[in-house]
Parts: sequence; structure tokens; C-alpha cells
Amino acid sequence: MADAMSYKLNLSDLERDGDVSITQQLVDRFAAAIDAGELERGSKLPPTRELAAEAGVNHLTAARVYRKLAELGYVTAQVGRGTFVRTLAPAGSASHGDDWQVYALPPDDTSYSEQVLADTFSLANREGVISLATGWPAPSTYPTQELARIAADVFEEIGGEALSYLPAEGLFDLREQIAARGRMYGYAEDADELVITSGAQQAIALSARATLEPGDVAVIESPTFIGMMTAMRGTGARVIGVPVDEHGMDVDALERLLARHEVKLVGLQSACQNPTGSSISDERRARLAELAVERNFFIIEDRVYADMHFDGKLVRPVRELAPAHVLYVNSLSKVVGGGLRTGWVAARGPVRDRIAMLKLEADFHSPTLIQHMAARWLATGAYDRHVAGTIPFYRERRDALLAALERHLPGEYHADPPEGGHHVWVTLTRPLDERALYAEAARGGVMFTPGGAVTAERRSQTSLRLSFSLLDPDQLDEGVRRLARAIREVRRRARHSVAAPMS
Amino acid sequence: MADAMSYKLNLSDLERDGDVSITQQLVDRFAAAIDAGELERGSKLPPTRELAAEAGVNHLTAARVYRKLAELGYVTAQVGRGTFVRTLAPAGSASHGDDWQVYALPPDDTSYSEQVLADTFSLANREGVISLATGWPAPSTYPTQELARIAADVFEEIGGEALSYLPAEGLFDLREQIAARGRMYGYAEDADELVITSGAQQAIALSARATLEPGDVAVIESPTFIGMMTAMRGTGARVIGVPVDEHGMDVDALERLLARHEVKLVGLQSACQNPTGSSISDERRARLAELAVERNFFIIEDRVYADMHFDGKLVRPVRELAPAHVLYVNSLSKVVGGGLRTGWVAARGPVRDRIAMLKLEADFHSPTLIQHMAARWLATGAYDRHVAGTIPFYRERRDALLAALERHLPGEYHADPPEGGHHVWVTLTRPLDERALYAEAARGGVMFTPGGAVTAERRSQTSLRLSFSLLDPDQLDEGVRRLARAIREVRRRARHSVAAPMS
Repeated sequence: MADAMSYKLNLSDLERDGDVSITQQLVDRFAAAIDAGELERGSKLPPTRELAAEAGVNHLTAARVYRKLAELGYVTAQVGRGTFVRTLAPAGSASHGDDWQVYALPPDDTSYSEQVLADTFSLANREGVISLATGWPAPSTYPTQELARIAADVFEEIGGEALSYLPAEGLFDLREQIAARGRMYGYAEDADELVITSGAQQAIALSARATLEPGDVAVIESPTFIGMMTAMRGTGARVIGVPVDEHGMDVDALERLLARHEVKLVGLQSACQNPTGSSISDERRARLAELAVERNFFIIEDRVYADMHFDGKLVRPVRELAPAHVLYVNSLSKVVGGGLRTGWVAARGPVRDRIAMLKLEADFHSPTLIQHMAARWLATGAYDRHVAGTIPFYRERRDALLAALERHLPGEYHADPPEGGHHVWVTLTRPLDERALYAEAARGGVMFTPGGAVTAERRSQTSLRLSFSLLDPDQLDEGVRRLARAIREVRRRARHSVAAPMS
Repeated sequence: MADAMSYKLNLSDLERDGDVSITQQLVDRFAAAIDAGELERGSKLPPTRELAAEAGVNHLTAARVYRKLAELGYVTAQVGRGTFVRTLAPAGSASHGDDWQVYALPPDDTSYSEQVLADTFSLANREGVISLATGWPAPSTYPTQELARIAADVFEEIGGEALSYLPAEGLFDLREQIAARGRMYGYAEDADELVITSGAQQAIALSARATLEPGDVAVIESPTFIGMMTAMRGTGARVIGVPVDEHGMDVDALERLLARHEVKLVGLQSACQNPTGSSISDERRARLAELAVERNFFIIEDRVYADMHFDGKLVRPVRELAPAHVLYVNSLSKVVGGGLRTGWVAARGPVRDRIAMLKLEADFHSPTLIQHMAARWLATGAYDRHVAGTIPFYRERRDALLAALERHLPGEYHADPPEGGHHVWVTLTRPLDERALYAEAARGGVMFTPGGAVTAERRSQTSLRLSFSLLDPDQLDEGVRRLARAIREVRRRARHSVAAPMS
């Protein structure tokens, strides 16, 4: 990493008698140097004492300069380590150029998951990269022709109404269509229970904000879906993980946690969990529902993969056993189109009203045209038939990924075949530095989701999430081949250096 | 208001030896009674001492019951007044039936603005109601035919890509189109500065979250746009108002505030402000930009009405004078369609990256199809011509509203004609209880925005915002006639009662 002192921060011409305070002048110079890229992201700033001596100011002034830079988001202070230029570089930010170096993950754990999530969105379609990090549905499975026709019908029939405002909770017709499915599958009884959101991600984020205050304790499965974790952390809550195994969330572990903490919210994917692909057992499901009622916590039950079980099994939702305590989340993203951003949450009573109010504050409502399209597509009755059609497609890709792992990493990993969904959770038999692997894999043209980014503890040296949904069998094979090569390279380097790997 | 003790909360059969704690049993009974509507929203619960005696539990247990109900969102505690069933009833919640009684505004100030905003969305198209509260663009002004054709073109040309995911900051083509306008009008230089959001509301909400922590001080114009205020309050910041007059935000008042508080964020609409219709003077604009740089605070500059100046005047943005400190917000809602939910924020440096990251956490990105449609519509070059075409339409409605006020309330109000936008800010010459007026007006078939809901102080007894955009001249006349009648009725009642008006 670059050393700030090697960057010539010109301090000779500070104006001691000018209108602008010395503090502000120093803040401006650092900020300008960071904006201009002269001071690299991730580089460490000199200790305040050094800056004070260099600039001829006292120690408190120097500390104030760094505090201001931190407030402005330019730097981040790490306890016991010093002050660093922020490495946060979200999807498509100007700094995401062609330089692979930017895929060095941030040293501060707080933005690790966020950075990995952002990379997923910015790298999915990047030329020359095989992204095993991207668990999006394949656009070829979407009912594009039908939606094009439906869009034309909507404009034809309702005209300018398709461009007008709606109430926050969304179009009644769409909520009715979803409630009709909800009555069949145990997740909603009435359109009034539903709030339409911009995808499951917004449903989760609003549900978390409706139920958590800063400092509250929330529990997630670990590993989990990154978006669930970042949404909960975004509320300022303390997020604790419980293990998830082939029978779903470890409810005994949750119960032990409940004895020590006042838990306000538990988040899980009860069917075809991301990333393990496992589903909750009937016994655990019943116990979890009991606990929610007894201990009075809310559950976010994310069901985005529930209809995509490869054996066609219907895993019943926790929601039907504790309807007042479960905020049931789903979307059309895996079936009709992720770019539609059409999701929903089913909830009852005051928490449903709070979610609707937060939706209003967040963005008023989700786009009107899209809601009409979704309602009409659901009204065609094509949902179940359409989903059934995609299952063999994704099952073939799952099998191709499992075969590629066996081919390129024999004896070096363990992976349970997922029951459904888009991901395989791979555990290496020997640990390695996952950040080093992330950078090395990117250099070699393959991306994956490092385990540490999807675990509550933010650390893993053995697990990776590999997604198969977007790649055909040949691409999956080539991706795993590149990944295996990167793993070998990182192991080789680790053997040649007992010092800490890449900083 | 109903008294809780008149509701027979059956406490005789509490199970003293059961599996469920007495606390939980009491919580369940209150919750069930509230859900069932047996215990009305807004009604006061008995003091804990009374509950304790009635239920045969100790005082601490009774307090715990109320605390749990508050956590679940069923009740709200008001210092010095007691515990009340929550009156929050967002847009379209089940309790919004045909009973006008629900339009009684909440007694707790904290949700006053939120409730008024929610009513706007749920009442705009209600049968028999003339909504002077709803400042939406008229759908007849939208380029509906063009958008229908463009939607078909998008599907034809890019197929399933129209349904696929995008990076958080949005479609590059759309950002390019907006940046091209931004370069002309001084609000953006480059597509990389832009983050596409779901309307200006989301741009404001994310900008506020990117710059404010709980306890921070933020400043808004008072009166202001409700959504600006609720978004800032939603961060947990302390929101202070400064006056706005015919020259825009009172920057001298802001400067006095800056001397007393460390202000992190200032929000304003610099042109055709909602609700006053005034624009910032050149002198104040320059001083505000200077202050932002000197004192290092961010500005949210909301420009949704800036292109709709009735005299065609271009009010230059603050952004061009302090580009690193201004988060410039705009949308297509007033021009192309509010239901498209297409807005943006232009920002530089780390704060732009933070906004993009918050967008990712909030809902991944705004819908793909809509972004393609917006980009293509802007690429037609129709924007300026289209806006110019709508100005005479809205100017006629403004004049009709001003004439109706003169006709039905002569000598009883003051209103400066707005320079642009959709609203008239009316100040009554004599105070009245605006909550009483809100309920009475609703009963008489007209809605308005009470001044207290759009002022930082949350209190006004003299001002109303009346919106003219959605109503034709006859409807505007009839709406003001009904409003004048409601004002007279509230005044008549106040004369006959020296006690406090409606509770």
C-alpha cells in the first residue's frame, strides 16, 4: 500500500492569516488529493503527530482534520491501526476501471459485504470475466414476449394512468393476485396484508427498519444472503449469526441466543436457502414459530427461492404457523424478471402499517406501469407452469457445477447438493486467505462470493458461494477451472511466505 | 375519544399457572382488541396502576405490558399524557374505510406529517372528494403515446435485457442523457456523478441517510415539501426550520443557526419552491454556496419544479457554485410521469459512492425497463418542448385557484402568486385549529394540506397549502367553495366553545 508521506502533500503554502482556517485548508488538500487519485484508496495517512509536525499545527488540529475527512467519507479510522483512505468503491464508481487492483477488498470489515455485493452488480456482464458470484436468473427463462405484449395492452387500455401515482402499498389488482396465491400457500389471506416493494431486497430493508432500532439485536442465518445482512446492519442493529445446516436454521442455537439476548428480529430463507440450498425441517419450523410467539420477536421469512425446489417439494412457510410475527417476503425476480424490481411483504397489524409508511418515505411507491404488468401476468395463471419449466434448466446447471468441482478440485472441498435455488456452498478442506483468493481469481478472470462476506462473523477462510444460474455448463466448467488455478496459486504463495498475505 | 375502561377487556380468565406469562397474555388481549377494532385507534389506555389493580398484577408488570405493546407498534406513550392506541394509519390501510372519522389527525405530533402525506396518496382519486392536497402533475400532460411506442421498441430491440438487473447507480445511457442536460444547466458534468433513484423522494431519502446520523442537526425551509421533512426526520436527525420568503430560503436566518449548531445538511427547493412557489435570489444563492464551503455542510437541492417557471425564467442552481457540497436532486415525475418513479441525484466524491451503496442496500436498482424508456424519451430531445407545452396549462390552473380564493374568501387570507410549481401557500388573516379544519373539510368533501404538516415546528394555525395541478378551473372553484364553508363552520364552533377544540 502507498504511504501517505510518499505523496507530497504541499504544506508549505498554507495561509496562516487567510479567511479559511488551517483545519479547513488541510481538509481541502487531503480531499482534493483523494479525489484526484493522488492519494490512493486504502493507503494509510500519517499519524496525527506527524501531520501536526509537518504542517506546523498542534495535535488537536491534526486530529480534527482527520475527523472532518472521516465525516466527509474520505477516510476511515481503524482502532489501533490508524487512518486510511476509504476503499469503499460501489458498483460502477469512477474508480472501477480496468485495473484489477481495485478488487482488493477493503481492510475494514464494516464494508466487506457491501463491496462484494456491489462487485456482483458491476461485474456480472464484464467482458472476459466468468462470474460465479452472480446468482441472477438467466434472462432466457423470463417470459419476455408475454410481458412485451402485456405492456402494450396496459398502455392501450389505461393510457396515462400507467404513468400516474399509486398509494404506497401498491396496486390493488397486483395485491389481489398475490393474495390469491398467498391463500393457497399459507402466506397471506388478504390484499390488505401486502405491501408491494421494489424487489425482495426492499421488502427486507423496510421490514428491518420497521422492527429494529440502533443497538437492537437481530439474528440471521450464517451464511446468509448478503442483502439480508447489509439491510439489517444498515439499521444500526447488532447482527448475530446462527448456523444453518442441511435442515435449515439451527433453532437450538437460536434458543441459546435468546437466553442471552433480547432478540427483536430473526431473518431466514426457509426454503432453498441462499447460499446452502437447504430448507428448514418441519420440526424446526414449528419450534421457530413457537419461539417467535413466546418471545415476541419478528421473523423476516425470505422465500425468493421457495418455488424453485428441484424435486418440486413444497416447503411450508413459517408464516402459516405464526402469522402475526412473520414478515413474509417474496418477489417475481427469479421467475418473471429481476429488473422488474417487483417484490412484496405480507404482514399484519401495526407492523404492516409501519412498513407501508416507510415505503412512502422511501420512494412513495413502486412504478405503476410495472405493477400493472405484473398483475396482468399473474392473472394469466402462467406462474406455476412457467416456474415448472425453469426447474430442469437450473437443475442441469447445478449438476454441471457439481461435476466441474469434482473435475477440477477433487478431494479439496465439500459441497452438499442444493435442494433448489441458484448456489452451491463449497467448503475447502484446508483454509486459505479468501481476500487473497478474491483478488487472484479476479486477475484470472473468475469471480466468486467469499464466505466471509456472507457470514455474520465476517470471517471465513474455507468457504465460497458459487452461483450456477447465469452460466451454461461450458462456462461453469471453465469458471471452476480458473478458480482451481487461483486456489493453487494462493496456496503456493502462502507456502513461500510466512508473513501475512496481501495487505 | 373512547376510554379504554369502557371497553371490556376480559381479565377474569387470565391463566395464572399456564405456560404463557401473565404479561404475554395481557399483551395478546390488548393486541387482539386493537386488531379487531374493539379498542379504537387514538383511545387512551388506563394508567398502569389501574391496569395492575384490575388484572391483579403488580405495577411493573403492567408497565411491561404497555412497553411490549409499544414495541409491537400497537400503542404510543406520550410524556405526561399517558398511553394511546396508535393512530398511525398509512395510505390505504384497512382502517381507511368510508368513515370520515379516520381523517382525524393523530394527537402525537411525530406522525402528523406522515399521516398527511399518506392521505394525499390515498385520497387523490377518491369519489366525491376534491383534493386540493394533491399536487401531482395532470396525467393528460404526460407523453403517454410516445412512451407506449418506446416501451414496445425497448422490448423489440433488447428483449430479456429489459427485465434483467442493472448496477445500483442505474443505466449508463440514462445517466448520459441526464448528464448532457446537467452540463447545460450547471448541475452535473459527467454520467459518473449521477445515481438513478426511484423518484426525487428516494434521491432525497438516500441523500439524507448518506449525510446524517441520529442526533445530527439538519436544516430545512419551513414551510417545505413534506417528503423532504419526513426523509430527514427518518434518519433520527434533529430537523430545524428556517423561514422562506419571496426570495427563497432566508440565508441570514440560516447563518444565525450555524452559529449555534453544527449543521450537517441543509435541504431546499431553490426554484418554484413547494409550497410557497418562490425562488432563491442570486444574492442568497451565492451566500448559501459560500456557507456550505466555509462551514462544510452538504446541501440537498431539490429541483423538481425548476423547469416549470411560469415566466420561463431559469433560476440557476446552487450546485454550480458549490459542486462538491451540493447533492442535486431532480426527477421526471412532473414532466413524463410520476408513476415512472424516475429521479436522480448528482453528487461528487465519497458521498456519491455512499449514496450508490445505500441505493444498492435499499432496492438494488430502479426498474430496468423504465430506465431504458426514460433514456430513449430524453434522447428524442422532446424535453424542453414538452415542458414548454405544459406551462400555459398549469398557469391557467394557478390563476383559476387565485380567482376562486378571491371569490370565496375575500379579505380573509393572503397569498403570493407562485412563480411556478403546483401550489399556492395561503395564510389566513385569523388563526383557527387546522386539525379541526382538516376533519371538517374532509367531511365537506375537500382535502388540503395543513400548514403544520409542512413546517418544521409542526404547528400552524393560519396557513394551508392548496394544490391546483390536478383540478380543472370548475373543480378548483368548487373545492375552494367547500373549503371556505368548512373554515366558517370551524370558526362558528370555536365561538361557541371556549374549551379546546376537537381532541
